Amino acid sequence: MTRDMILGLEVVLPDGSVISALNRMIKNNAGYDLKHLFIGSEGTLGVITRLVLRLFPKPACTFAALCALPSYEAVVGLLSAARRGLGPMLSAFEVMWPDYWEVVAGMPGVRVPLPAGHAAYCLVEAQGTDETFDAPRFQAWLEAQAEAGLLADAVVSRSLADVTTFWGVRDACSEFPQVLGPHEPFDIGLPVAAMDAYVRACKAALEARLPGAFALFYGHIGDGNLHIVAGLRGAVPQPKDVIQEVVYGLVREFGGTVSAEHGIGLTKKPWLGHVRSDAEIALMRRLKTLMDPAGVLNPGKVV
Amino acid sequence: MTRDMILGLEVVLPDGSVISALNRMIKNNAGYDLKHLFIGSEGTLGVITRLVLRLFPKPACTFAALCALPSYEAVVGLLSAARRGLGPMLSAFEVMWPDYWEVVAGMPGVRVPLPAGHAAYCLVEAQGTDETFDAPRFQAWLEAQAEAGLLADAVVSRSLADVTTFWGVRDACSEFPQVLGPHEPFDIGLPVAAMDAYVRACKAALEARLPGAFALFYGHIGDGNLHIVAGLRGAVPQPKDVIQEVVYGLVREFGGTVSAEHGIGLTKKPWLGHVRSDAEIALMRRLKTLMDPAGVLNPGKVV
Repeated sequence: MTRDMILGLEVVLPDGSVISALNRMIKNNAGYDLKHLFIGSEGTLGVITRLVLRLFPKPACTFAALCALPSYEAVVGLLSAARRGLGPMLSAFEVMWPDYWEVVAGMPGVRVPLPAGHAAYCLVEAQGTDETFDAPRFQAWLEAQAEAGLLADAVVSRSLADVTTFWGVRDACSEFPQVLGPHEPFDIGLPVAAMDAYVRACKAALEARLPGAFALFYGHIGDGNLHIVAGLRGAVPQPKDVIQEVVYGLVREFGGTVSAEHGIGLTKKPWLGHVRSDAEIALMRRLKTLMDPAGVLNPGKVV
Repeated sequence: MTRDMILGLEVVLPDGSVISALNRMIKNNAGYDLKHLFIGSEGTLGVITRLVLRLFPKPACTFAALCALPSYEAVVGLLSAARRGLGPMLSAFEVMWPDYWEVVAGMPGVRVPLPAGHAAYCLVEAQGTDETFDAPRFQAWLEAQAEAGLLADAVVSRSLADVTTFWGVRDACSEFPQVLGPHEPFDIGLPVAAMDAYVRACKAALEARLPGAFALFYGHIGDGNLHIVAGLRGAVPQPKDVIQEVVYGLVREFGGTVSAEHGIGLTKKPWLGHVRSDAEIALMRRLKTLMDPAGVLNPGKVV
């Protein structure tokens, strides 16, 4: 999370005062932590003018496996095994549902190294500090998962070029506007255990409200983030309101969030009440009024 | 940091309203992040009544080395090498200055496995997920640091009992009230590169202001935290004001913090202005007035 990489900041308030909180230490518990008030506030509480970032050494080596799994239960099992067995080496855990995989397999220029037809697909990536120890460790971990019955099929990287190829399957979503035509993109968050039930409920509700609609699901579930692209082929304009009602209505039901990483802005503002309580939103408004009484900073956004 | 382990919370405000922000997701960017306003606010902005904690699997194995180093530059070099070579396996990096080591070596019941007389001592701990790979890796990493000239002497753990023995040297500070008599304890934070210069300046200034005063320095510099115990043997009462002036005056000069982890409360409140700007403290006061206009929550603390 970007938030976790920020040690300090300088911010200018609407009255022109400068809050200089350019902390350089990992731990500083002298008074209230002001920086988190501004991070992610989308420019509505102050203008950030300087940042102190936390840096880490570049990892020495990267490994990846592209896996086909027999069920979503196996996905949750694999994530748990990765956290236990790879520990903090685990650097990505991307899940792709079958509809996503089938669309990407048909795209020109994308090499898809596993056949369609499985219940779920995962891209597992690990970064290490010493290839001598970490390469056999990653291989051994993957073999143990296959023996435990979590994998229906898998390919493991033998080079950084392989890692790039595997990521090509996940990054193919950037071509969706050309491939799928008009659609609605979503960036939601959900408790990991609830994610597949959400996906099934969402597909069913979309089919009921908009027969023939498509919906592809994929995301980095290691941090609870699910992306959705949904639409009705050929419809101009797209039935945006209905799609949002279905997707965000179920987010509320499953205890998720309407924005995992991209913020609220204007477009998600009507849905903020789905995932934050009245008391939370009232407090956000009080903070906004305190910091920016005249409402000059990014007016109308977030709250 | 405890802060990083908290996903969500429920807090009661002075007006009786309940802010329920029991988020269960790692990433949630729907509106302002309210939880960080309450974490570390020492009960002055609201009363936290429930928490959602982030959990991690228990590490499978732990290794430690107790090292003697020829200089503080070698300490910084070893920390950098640990971040690069052990990566996120690194779970503790404790430094003890020579005065600390000598006092602990003389304490009954503490086994000190390295001789006195070195410029600095470090306890390096790593936690792994697979002993088969991680034990030889830790050993190889330590040998490489010895070959690079960073270590004057070192002992490495061969069992969890050894790890406990090594921590005994660092944890002996809990007996300081019995061993040293009355003294002032400190919990400061400093940029890691400045830490030894601070220690030397602090010892010199204490000696100048209070001839014969003792001062022991130790801390977990992996996160920039330095502990100090300082006092004048036999003095009743202790010259507390002078010691605080020296320690906190130099913290201001070196760009540190008067509280790395234990907060401000009442005792550090006079020193808050040493490390937070007037604009920061003014904003903290505005937040306090907004949240608790009648001043009923933990009155008089922090700001």
